[in-house]
Amino acid sequence: MAELNELSAIEAARRIESGDLTAEALMRACLERVAERDETVRAWAHLDPDQAIAGAMAADAAGNPGPLAGLPVAVKDIIDTADMPTRHGSTIYGLNRPNADAAVVTQTRQRGGVVMGKTVTTEFAWRNPGPTGNPHNAAHTPGGSSSGSAAGVADFQFPLAFGTQTAGSVIRPAAYCGAVGFKPSVGTHSREGVKELSNYLDTVGCFARSVEDAAFFDAVLRGGAPAALDGFDTTPPRIGVMVPFRIEAETAALDMLETVWRRAEAAGAAIRDVPSSTDFEALADLQTVVMTGDSGRALEWEYARHPERLTRFYRDNIALGLAMADGALAAAKARADKAREEQAALFEGVDVLLTLPAPGEAPLGLGFTGDPLFNRVWTILGWPCVTIPAGSGPNGLPLGAQIIAPAGEDARALAAAAWLEKALD
Amino acid sequence: MAELNELSAIEAARRIESGDLTAEALMRACLERVAERDETVRAWAHLDPDQAIAGAMAADAAGNPGPLAGLPVAVKDIIDTADMPTRHGSTIYGLNRPNADAAVVTQTRQRGGVVMGKTVTTEFAWRNPGPTGNPHNAAHTPGGSSSGSAAGVADFQFPLAFGTQTAGSVIRPAAYCGAVGFKPSVGTHSREGVKELSNYLDTVGCFARSVEDAAFFDAVLRGGAPAALDGFDTTPPRIGVMVPFRIEAETAALDMLETVWRRAEAAGAAIRDVPSSTDFEALADLQTVVMTGDSGRALEWEYARHPERLTRFYRDNIALGLAMADGALAAAKARADKAREEQAALFEGVDVLLTLPAPGEAPLGLGFTGDPLFNRVWTILGWPCVTIPAGSGPNGLPLGAQIIAPAGEDARALAAAAWLEKALD
Repeated sequence: MAELNELSAIEAARRIESGDLTAEALMRACLERVAERDETVRAWAHLDPDQAIAGAMAADAAGNPGPLAGLPVAVKDIIDTADMPTRHGSTIYGLNRPNADAAVVTQTRQRGGVVMGKTVTTEFAWRNPGPTGNPHNAAHTPGGSSSGSAAGVADFQFPLAFGTQTAGSVIRPAAYCGAVGFKPSVGTHSREGVKELSNYLDTVGCFARSVEDAAFFDAVLRGGAPAALDGFDTTPPRIGVMVPFRIEAETAALDMLETVWRRAEAAGAAIRDVPSSTDFEALADLQTVVMTGDSGRALEWEYARHPERLTRFYRDNIALGLAMADGALAAAKARADKAREEQAALFEGVDVLLTLPAPGEAPLGLGFTGDPLFNRVWTILGWPCVTIPAGSGPNGLPLGAQIIAPAGEDARALAAAAWLEKALD
Repeated sequence: MAELNELSAIEAARRIESGDLTAEALMRACLERVAERDETVRAWAHLDPDQAIAGAMAADAAGNPGPLAGLPVAVKDIIDTADMPTRHGSTIYGLNRPNADAAVVTQTRQRGGVVMGKTVTTEFAWRNPGPTGNPHNAAHTPGGSSSGSAAGVADFQFPLAFGTQTAGSVIRPAAYCGAVGFKPSVGTHSREGVKELSNYLDTVGCFARSVEDAAFFDAVLRGGAPAALDGFDTTPPRIGVMVPFRIEAETAALDMLETVWRRAEAAGAAIRDVPSSTDFEALADLQTVVMTGDSGRALEWEYARHPERLTRFYRDNIALGLAMADGALAAAKARADKAREEQAALFEGVDVLLTLPAPGEAPLGLGFTGDPLFNRVWTILGWPCVTIPAGSGPNGLPLGAQIIAPAGEDARALAAAAWLEKALD
């Protein structure tokens, strides 16, 4: 029998609702796991066990508190919480305690979730990492920027977590840690109370250990019923295999991808090769321009007032962003808008695209969270992305497979990912 | 007795002029060294031994061919040569054979130097490295972008070489390889025929194995007599010790720097602590803005016509540079102009500054040539910089000590470096 902390979110919620389990017992099991593992994984920017237990007890006391039923939810530390610090991975915010919860935190709490604590993020959700190690081998990066959320979910410290993605900050760490990561269509969830990096790119997403759990959490946040994941039960998905930037991929990752599509084909999926478009090269450039220009504007206060507390990477990038012409930034966004329409043709004849979520396994070392190149174009296109675990590489670290659907077709992305998850099982 | 290839440039020229040695014999000795070492050090982008020997024989045949007397000179492969390929470290220029020599190559040849071959550069003298390894341990980077010139001089493959510096491309590789590197005041040597990266920053410099040799080569290029290096014989220099970005330095490098100034003090130098200015943080940002903006403009053709042959780093940076407002770039340069005047006050009461040329030893791996942070501000200030070898670190790799003088005071920088070289001997 699985330990309580290993229960899926849906199973745990079901048991709590049926009276078999209390939110408090579940939280205590998660905290025990944290006590065992925190020295190694270091996923937390803030965790007060008493506060977490009090939250779970309050959920129990409230009776039927909503669909999240008292489940522990970990929150990336660039998302505001009124009862916990929110440090954005920066000493500039070392003493920051927001006055209010972010919109997605409010939704989580209103629908029965218990904010367990705040998870480690890189500095303002970009490059400079925190202390988190990969739960499969803590000498390797967990990826970033949503490092703690990805590592902690994969390490069975909590069933659900929030992340955000501006380049590859949900999908890549999920793949590196062997978790499921979901980045919805851009604009899906409110960014109110989420530290802005790029108003064009930032997308709130989530982590879980199954597609079903991620879909459940996402649906609760949307305020609707969980998406039906059986969309491909009778007719398996038509999958286009597309690997932009293939030259940057590790052999093990490419081999894994072939295994994945062959299994999918064996399970009934129609597989088609979608040639990698050279447009993607230019779109990656565009993502850099938008992210740098936007972040310079978003972090202008920090740069002006606390320059000495920004790492060199950020100083350089903010300086570049501020030097960018407003017109050039607007033109880049206009080109991205156009690409969002034009590139939709990639889905001609296929339901979803299958691609790599990262170049390969999590790199050695905690100084660099890995290359987001395999995420950046999907992010600027604003399309829904799901990554699922798909075996491991030569170092015994997880590999992933990423499913992409057209803008707004989030339910389709999740259904296809769930179908593939079963096919690989 | 030293092997011929280990002779100093000055000694070799003296022997050739006196008839003790031929340029051909010297070139053959250098080529023998290359034959032994090239598999390990891989300093060359182009080397045709027959061509090199023919050049030396022609110098011998010409009789007294000028002050360089038939010495082998290695040329960084972003500097045009009419008789050799000039590839700029990029496949875009894989078949490029310029029509004419660059101005500094013309000067070299007119004054008796023999261009031995072209040395490995990173892609367009910025980030993406070539195959060169550090001659002290080829698993470590030689630094860059003037990788082959620094490694080959230090490895006794040639006595003199050209490099260029836009961020830290002369001083850092010289320090990593245990060579002497000299970056003159900006604007000293012609950049005609040198692939442009930044018209504000690019500076042609040189490598040798002693300050005296570097000063000799530099003086020949200026068309004058070698600078007098005995300026501090009777009154040792007043040295200001200043370490901007100290927090980024390795302990071994900081310890070495203390050893250096203590020995200088023991040898009679007046030592003063010059507090690190926080202005340097902003000047480093400014260097990034200028280098990125300028390089976007300098490489616009390559980006427009051969985008698929640029590495991701360059694509991103050129895209950022092109998105930069002309006004912002001009304003950055105007601020740098102003800083060149204001920061001159750092020399109040001292002749030169002593600082680190790099954060420490050459990093492990050939994928990254190391951080130019300890060079970037001196480069944007346009001041003359000399680095000399100063012991080794925990991995047995060279450390360096960098001497900086005010704008135009190149002879002073060289004289102080020569004095320090003796004091450390």
